[in-house]
Amino acid sequence: MKHVRTQMQVQADDFFFSGLHLRGNTSNPLGSRVTPVFATQFPRLNTLGISMVRIDYAPCGLNPPHTHPRATEILTVIEGTLQVGFVTSNPDNRFITKVLQKGDVFVFPVGLVHFQRNVGNGYAVAIAALSSQNPGAITIANAVFGANPPIPGDILAKAFQVDKSVVDMIQAKF
Amino acid sequence: MKHVRTQMQVQADDFFFSGLHLRGNTSNPLGSRVTPVFATQFPRLNTLGISMVRIDYAPCGLNPPHTHPRATEILTVIEGTLQVGFVTSNPDNRFITKVLQKGDVFVFPVGLVHFQRNVGNGYAVAIAALSSQNPGAITIANAVFGANPPIPGDILAKAFQVDKSVVDMIQAKF
Amino acid sequence: MKHVRTQMQVQADDFFFSGLHLRGNTSNPLGSRVTPVFATQFPRLNTLGISMVRIDYAPCGLNPPHTHPRATEILTVIEGTLQVGFVTSNPDNRFITKVLQKGDVFVFPVGLVHFQRNVGNGYAVAIAALSSQNPGAITIANAVFGANPPIPGDILAKAFQVDKSVVDMIQAKF
Amino acid sequence: MKHVRTQMQVQADDFFFSGLHLRGNTSNPLGSRVTPVFATQFPRLNTLGISMVRIDYAPCGLNPPHTHPRATEILTVIEGTLQVGFVTSNPDNRFITKVLQKGDVFVFPVGLVHFQRNVGNGYAVAIAALSSQNPGAITIANAVFGANPPIPGDILAKAFQVDKSVVDMIQAKF
Amino acid sequence: MKHVRTQMQVQADDFFFSGLHLRGNTSNPLGSRVTPVFATQFPRLNTLGISMVRIDYAPCGLNPPHTHPRATEILTVIEGTLQVGFVTSNPDNRFITKVLQKGDVFVFPVGLVHFQRNVGNGYAVAIAALSSQNPGAITIANAVFGANPPIPGDILAKAFQVDKSVVDMIQAKF
Amino acid sequence: MKHVRTQMQVQADDFFFSGLHLRGNTSNPLGSRVTPVFATQFPRLNTLGISMVRIDYAPCGLNPPHTHPRATEILTVIEGTLQVGFVTSNPDNRFITKVLQKGDVFVFPVGLVHFQRNVGNGYAVAIAALSSQNPGAITIANAVFGANPPIPGDILAKAFQVDKSVVDMIQAKF
Repeated sequence: MKHVRTQMQVQADDFFFSGLHLRGNTSNPLGSRVTPVFATQFPRLNTLGISMVRIDYAPCGLNPPHTHPRATEILTVIEGTLQVGFVTSNPDNRFITKVLQKGDVFVFPVGLVHFQRNVGNGYAVAIAALSSQNPGAITIANAVFGANPPIPGDILAKAFQVDKSVVDMIQAKF
Repeated sequence: MKHVRTQMQVQADDFFFSGLHLRGNTSNPLGSRVTPVFATQFPRLNTLGISMVRIDYAPCGLNPPHTHPRATEILTVIEGTLQVGFVTSNPDNRFITKVLQKGDVFVFPVGLVHFQRNVGNGYAVAIAALSSQNPGAITIANAVFGANPPIPGDILAKAFQVDKSVVDMIQAKF
Repeated sequence: MKHVRTQMQVQADDFFFSGLHLRGNTSNPLGSRVTPVFATQFPRLNTLGISMVRIDYAPCGLNPPHTHPRATEILTVIEGTLQVGFVTSNPDNRFITKVLQKGDVFVFPVGLVHFQRNVGNGYAVAIAALSSQNPGAITIANAVFGANPPIPGDILAKAFQVDKSVVDMIQAKF
Repeated sequence: MKHVRTQMQVQADDFFFSGLHLRGNTSNPLGSRVTPVFATQFPRLNTLGISMVRIDYAPCGLNPPHTHPRATEILTVIEGTLQVGFVTSNPDNRFITKVLQKGDVFVFPVGLVHFQRNVGNGYAVAIAALSSQNPGAITIANAVFGANPPIPGDILAKAFQVDKSVVDMIQAKF
Repeated sequence: MKHVRTQMQVQADDFFFSGLHLRGNTSNPLGSRVTPVFATQFPRLNTLGISMVRIDYAPCGLNPPHTHPRATEILTVIEGTLQVGFVTSNPDNRFITKVLQKGDVFVFPVGLVHFQRNVGNGYAVAIAALSSQNPGAITIANAVFGANPPIPGDILAKAFQVDKSVVDMIQAKF
Repeated sequence: MKHVRTQMQVQADDFFFSGLHLRGNTSNPLGSRVTPVFATQFPRLNTLGISMVRIDYAPCGLNPPHTHPRATEILTVIEGTLQVGFVTSNPDNRFITKVLQKGDVFVFPVGLVHFQRNVGNGYAVAIAALSSQNPGAITIANAVFGANPPIPGDILAKAFQVDKSVVDMIQAKF
């Protein structure tokens, strides 16, 4: 991690980050990879209220349902074809979805559950920006079924209206 | 819904809302009920950046995992015993939990997945406040498995690492 | 006072505060007691933009005219009957007042002079939330007549349009 | 009041206000006069987060204890000699005061009770700016003893620890 | 321009904008073209605090010195090689510059004068995001020498320490 | 520079700054002088969101085109006659100008290029306030032609549509 220098010492490198040309490793069950450029990776973003990510998608790859607790996201497709979607908040829970081609732009309002998946024939790449230098990310499946220690299974069974055995099975995957 | 009057016409009733003494109807599968006092119900809250809720819990009742996309929540137990919990964001997904007695206070930072459940012998009641007049609420199970129209089952199967038949079964409940 | 830990070390207790079930000591001339849960008492509230108080009122007890310089307040009556009021700013200085019963909610916009008094037959209790973790409180009588060192008496005599002897008399009480 | 035009129609006059060279009429019991340039008088200030006032003080004139519920104030003395002061919030209620000469600058943090009085031999003038286009002003004596309708006298008697007859006397002046 | 619908009527198309795959027309004296996706073009961005642009650069093309009065900008190079630079504010006016390759990221803090130019052999493309839905853009040369009506020439001659004939010559170009 | 003390130690002098009665030295090519009262000079302004300046103008003096990257400015003329102006952002670049007399007020929205010049017969003085304790200032000519190290001349030649020799000549002045 780079360090933040005082104003008298700032150098061009402080405002610089490299690596978004590199394809992220999508050899994982989801077939996607997010490369974040947040204040953690790029400390000069602190107080500036913006950050960026590259997202890679293997064929059929999924950036699974997640939220950013402190940022709106604007995304553009650099390569490939993506289905994107988000769900509005209670009580409507409307599913809003769209297939995006290269050059299309989509905005995911702060805190809403959203995803992207590759519905084209090849790899896909998106660049997205977020309205915070520290937007956070909560992958719903991981937070709910993969928390450490686990959320008690009876809570999840009740919330998802399934037998606890189903919850146990899902938790075992995470 | 009340209407907002101009500054010259404001009356005491504009700043007033009643009904938080009433036990919410918890005769539902979750055994809980949230009574919101947001700007939708109480228009004078607009621009004031705060709102309130009463939450009722039948024995074993659960206010299931949810997020508020635009607010931090501070909660105090008025009656009964609650287990509360939230999960930190990626990559740690730490489950932070505590059993609260009457008079205990807990804070859920903006956007994090959190829940409360009644772990006492009788009814439980909490009063909570939120740092927005329009905090929103996203019940995770409903947004993910109960969206309208549904999120495609293969997306959820991949995200939750289960067979699509499991997703179909859960979606059928919502 | 608790200490704030780094994000890697957070524990459930950091998000927890206890004691709002305890009746505040109202054996004082005003017959009221505010128990604050601000960032001073509960450091985790820092940056979260919200806080809470319990207010106890003996019969006839008064939470005297005061302001919060950095927060709007939303209050609900847990027990008893309260007359609440605030005064709009210059030039109208309209007095807006309402008698609240258990379960009623009232909002006091940021910075306005407001009070509550117990107009029921027994004790009264309110829970209120404020739109800042550090709302501040300025009790008007104390700030004006009880400042340390005192505000010169001739200033107050002119401001309140009374003989300086009246000011001297009031200042002597604080 | 001027009207706000659309962006395509803005004219220089929209960004312009005149009159701060005029001495305010100080022929009143307090011997002071505030000439505000807030969004009410100068609509273009809306959303811009700043406003200005001229304050005139006759010899011995007082701008009495007041608060701005939505702004910090920075003041400079253009002419004359002013004693300025403010009181810190609970529990300390420290009185912070200073005598200012021409060219001195003082800052009154948001929401605190503050005043200025002319302690020189002639007239005095100050220019101040506020960190909101709509800062509001609450003159403590007017809000407390001059509200319309009046705050019940027994409330004020208890708050100020005086006989109700003293309150009646003060209220009669406003 | 699309219209903003009420919350009940939102459709996927409201959150969607297309066209960033299209090369901007760089047949102009500067050899560059900015394609904005601001709230003017994409109304759903209102209140969301973020926006995006595509910038095309012909060989030797220049996105000339400009500022965004209401936003920080984060930029990544999609194709080609760019020299980027900005100048710190008074009194240092330090010129901070860097040559960026594909995949490099650079951040321009709010309000600072900055530029990019193509220093590679072919075309270049950048995607940038801004921390406001309405960031504004002020091209320095246009605002100073191309204002309508013109800024008086003697003002600019004095500011830039040149003969008025030089100003006249520059103004004639705009 | 003064130091900021903890809240328990604050003294009146912490809230105090002196010197705005002193005429700034205008013996320089521009014939103007800005005396800032920003957080750098007056640390108590930190977090308070406001600051102040005095500006002196010799006859024909110019406060040259500049921007404040983080603040709107409101200005009033204390003495003399000023022409003020600003330019709206792209694409209109409208020049908005007005001649101000003593007591006139003008507002320059955040980030826009603006100037003032003395068009009266004698000296002129203005007091202005800014909506940030750390507004910054960017003198356009200095940032563009006087940066250190210099911005490459061919960039400026292209941006201003002049021969590089003209740029060289201007840069040599700074």
